[in-house]
Amino acid sequence: MSRARRALAPSPDTPVPPAVEADLRVDLGPLPNLVGYAMRRTQVAVFADFIATLSELGLRPAQFSALLLIDRNPGRKQSEIAEALGIQRPNFVAMMDEMDRRGLTRRLTSETDRRSYVLELTEAGRTLLERAVELVSEHEARITRDLSRDEVDLLLGLLARIAN
Amino acid sequence: MSRARRALAPSPDTPVPPAVEADLRVDLGPLPNLVGYAMRRTQVAVFADFIATLSELGLRPAQFSALLLIDRNPGRKQSEIAEALGIQRPNFVAMMDEMDRRGLTRRLTSETDRRSYVLELTEAGRTLLERAVELVSEHEARITRDLSRDEVDLLLGLLARIAN
Repeated sequence: MSRARRALAPSPDTPVPPAVEADLRVDLGPLPNLVGYAMRRTQVAVFADFIATLSELGLRPAQFSALLLIDRNPGRKQSEIAEALGIQRPNFVAMMDEMDRRGLTRRLTSETDRRSYVLELTEAGRTLLERAVELVSEHEARITRDLSRDEVDLLLGLLARIAN
Repeated sequence: MSRARRALAPSPDTPVPPAVEADLRVDLGPLPNLVGYAMRRTQVAVFADFIATLSELGLRPAQFSALLLIDRNPGRKQSEIAEALGIQRPNFVAMMDEMDRRGLTRRLTSETDRRSYVLELTEAGRTLLERAVELVSEHEARITRDLSRDEVDLLLGLLARIAN
């Protein structure tokens, strides 16, 4: 091992994401020890798997979340669902237009507020959502396969404390 | 508390990201307990702070990483730096064009391979990077302020095991 390579090798107690291992010859400096960087690299990898998982059903991640929330929250206004998902209103409306066209969802005028819409799933939407939930469970098991249930809970807790 | 609200309240031992607390009236179903979802929501919030931090210096996150790696890896080819960062070649070239124009970096023909470029920082680039590193340290301290050093290491280790 050359002097340069030795100097670049991470210390044994430093966790190293795979992208870093693959590029050992390039010194990443402080990046791998920054929570922001490690989280982004991991999240990008996980999200790619999530996108691939849902693409089997022709769904994008935001569409999956929307179907899930519509199913769980009958009678909610379109604007409330959009807000809960953190999706901008115009983007959400365009997405719902697409899901309506595919016959997955329906928009009804709200009985309490005739200026707003209430969303619901069609039978086809419900069937697709059920299949998507199965695939997402498999994806979740895949990404956490090296963690125990306690470690998953620990991770969720740490992420929540950062997000706060 | 109405029956519906009670049914939607998370159990006390379930970590709840802030976005979820803000939208308690909407049932998010299994989403908050999915590692993929919690990681994405947290990462999006953290990344927004990171983008705002660097924007003070007119830098985007990928530009910061590039400056850091160029500084740490004298003599490396442009293609190696791009690969280590996981940035597509054409995007990386466009980014380097911009940093060259701003007088932050220089491209030299490689002495060992005359078809490729070697990157280096100008004095202005080095000064900007030093300031950026300070700001990023502050950002990192901010996002992990509720975690102990051990918890940060734990989180880095868990993220690395997911990324594998």
